[in-house]
Amino acid sequence: MENFRFYNPVKIIFGKGAENNAGKEITRYGQNVLLVYGRNSIKQSRLYEKILYELQKAGIKVVEHPGVKSNPVLQHVKEGIEKAIKTKCEAVLAVGGGSVIDESKAIAAGVKHSGDIWNFFEGKSKITGALPIITILTLAASGSEMNAGCVITNEDTRQKFSAHSPHLFPKVSMLNPELTTSVPGDYTAYGVIDAMSHVLEGYFSTKTDNAFITDELCEGICKTLIKSMNILKNDLTNYAARANVMWSAALALNSLQRLGYKNTEFINHAIEHSLSAIYDIPHGAGLSIVIPAYMRFNLEKGNFKRIAHFGKNVLGINTTNEEKAASETVRRIKEWFSEIGSPVTLKEVNIPSGDIPDIAENAMATVKAWGMSYARRSIEEILKYSVA
Amino acid sequence: MENFRFYNPVKIIFGKGAENNAGKEITRYGQNVLLVYGRNSIKQSRLYEKILYELQKAGIKVVEHPGVKSNPVLQHVKEGIEKAIKTKCEAVLAVGGGSVIDESKAIAAGVKHSGDIWNFFEGKSKITGALPIITILTLAASGSEMNAGCVITNEDTRQKFSAHSPHLFPKVSMLNPELTTSVPGDYTAYGVIDAMSHVLEGYFSTKTDNAFITDELCEGICKTLIKSMNILKNDLTNYAARANVMWSAALALNSLQRLGYKNTEFINHAIEHSLSAIYDIPHGAGLSIVIPAYMRFNLEKGNFKRIAHFGKNVLGINTTNEEKAASETVRRIKEWFSEIGSPVTLKEVNIPSGDIPDIAENAMATVKAWGMSYARRSIEEILKYSVA
Repeated sequence: MENFRFYNPVKIIFGKGAENNAGKEITRYGQNVLLVYGRNSIKQSRLYEKILYELQKAGIKVVEHPGVKSNPVLQHVKEGIEKAIKTKCEAVLAVGGGSVIDESKAIAAGVKHSGDIWNFFEGKSKITGALPIITILTLAASGSEMNAGCVITNEDTRQKFSAHSPHLFPKVSMLNPELTTSVPGDYTAYGVIDAMSHVLEGYFSTKTDNAFITDELCEGICKTLIKSMNILKNDLTNYAARANVMWSAALALNSLQRLGYKNTEFINHAIEHSLSAIYDIPHGAGLSIVIPAYMRFNLEKGNFKRIAHFGKNVLGINTTNEEKAASETVRRIKEWFSEIGSPVTLKEVNIPSGDIPDIAENAMATVKAWGMSYARRSIEEILKYSVA
Repeated sequence: MENFRFYNPVKIIFGKGAENNAGKEITRYGQNVLLVYGRNSIKQSRLYEKILYELQKAGIKVVEHPGVKSNPVLQHVKEGIEKAIKTKCEAVLAVGGGSVIDESKAIAAGVKHSGDIWNFFEGKSKITGALPIITILTLAASGSEMNAGCVITNEDTRQKFSAHSPHLFPKVSMLNPELTTSVPGDYTAYGVIDAMSHVLEGYFSTKTDNAFITDELCEGICKTLIKSMNILKNDLTNYAARANVMWSAALALNSLQRLGYKNTEFINHAIEHSLSAIYDIPHGAGLSIVIPAYMRFNLEKGNFKRIAHFGKNVLGINTTNEEKAASETVRRIKEWFSEIGSPVTLKEVNIPSGDIPDIAENAMATVKAWGMSYARRSIEEILKYSVA
């Protein structure tokens, strides 16, 4: 078990009506708030009106910053920063999924920074402060509601990069599973796969296998996500299943999932970020294409021990032959991703196999930024397993 | 899944040499620290010298408060408060196990309070502030290093009561598994059983069974504790096993273990607190007597569903007959507690069965303080299953 540090001061308010605390929570930080949200979904669900009412009741002035895209872009972040500075916002309220929260974090940090904020994402500047961030989550997936990272896409350079800082921890995140009930089946599946991927990255790549407790946590999160998604497949309104997915997704990327692991990598994300940066596909859909390919790649290289471990403890695959168990694990994961309505090949999302060299080239920037040792050739090899 | 709130801002520094950060961490809060510790163990292990050296290097003035008992007592807490006020301590450094940390918390809160601090424990006063608390853990068991509670014994009234407040969260806890290597086998087992009990209380008593993710976390903690203790039984110096026990014990009572559960009780602790308050036996040893009795009591009352669930998922007991599975679970848990060197009957710790009415009477104060609905008769009934 490797040495580690853990610190996560996010206050979670979880359950029915959680969002009703918005007014009370925000007034701890200021009376002027930048309200960040996406396109129309929070208006369709009337969540928008409800929140405006709560804020008004608490005497909070609202500056709106709508229109966040599902892979949030730098230009829109910059507009948000300008707006927040001009109107002297004292806090940022994100209402939406991971994209809205990530953009809110970038805006909150940008307000406290005089230079180009893309420097945060290229590792050229350090985040030294941020406006207080408060979130109301409407999609269980990214875990951004309980961590200190954010991912932004630079449209000009086609780069999807991340930034991290303790200043980016939300002060409070309100998680009401009922707000996720209207998410359609495919996006529910993408969210589940995204959450699962956050656990799998470290679980598969760790160079130690004696962080028993972290293995148990990761396996427990995956078992819960699978069990809950299998319920939601037939009944998108099941509250317990929505609640378990929502809390599992937060736990899946709040750091607990990698404590004691050694030299973990985030290679599936590095590759997927290129897919969604170039083709603008949903992040979870991209992951569902990359993960089985990455597993297959490892299998062929003889790295099947951790995959077999997962198969045994999560899927109940029982065999004395580890390689066979690992192979069966890959097959079943891929099959299950399909079953719940997520693509597992590039073909399904109309990405031509001829683009693989370009995708790999794009991914290399992230590979380098995250300090991983993958060669471009290896990434191409992984992607080849995802063609069809 | 029930609504919940979660907030835990404790910074954890985990691994080899963690305690070397003491100087740097304490100087964030002040230059005058009250050093709280127990009897001789930190001197025998030379940890005492090492820490004094670290603090001296950081220019920190130390006021010592040694002599904390394993069930820390009110009188000694009061002496600590006086000392801290008189010498203008700005922070409290706890070096030891749960007892030392609990006493440090009580002192830290007491310094900021003008009235009788026992009022905190009787629920008559609210904790409104505390000196910053920093801990260096030497025994994995109580979880106090990562939570906001403390338990103190009033020697005059023979009451072992608890107090809670967000002010009691340690600012930073340094967890070096190597510091627990010198803990002998029996106390290692008591610690493991204490940690396990923190998970079992909620797991067995919850009125819902759809907090899948919390069940998984609880089961994962117990599986890890059992697996690690089985290694330590034969090799007390195994680092990975010590590390897994240490981190599992922190996770076992940092609130994650009960999120989404409904109307949970802490009845095993209510009864055990009376055993250790009256007979001064180790807390974990007391729990190891009470838990199997409590499980048996539930079995006889027909409440075997959660026990069977545990047996299936943690011990791998596979049967279609739930009652039989639960019965086998109780038998195995009791047998395992014995195997690892912990008592499972009152007789083994020389408590006469004739004392049961007195013990139950004593426990009723805690039952009431914690808002549980157990009758004295039920507690006597539970204790009768622990006679021999």
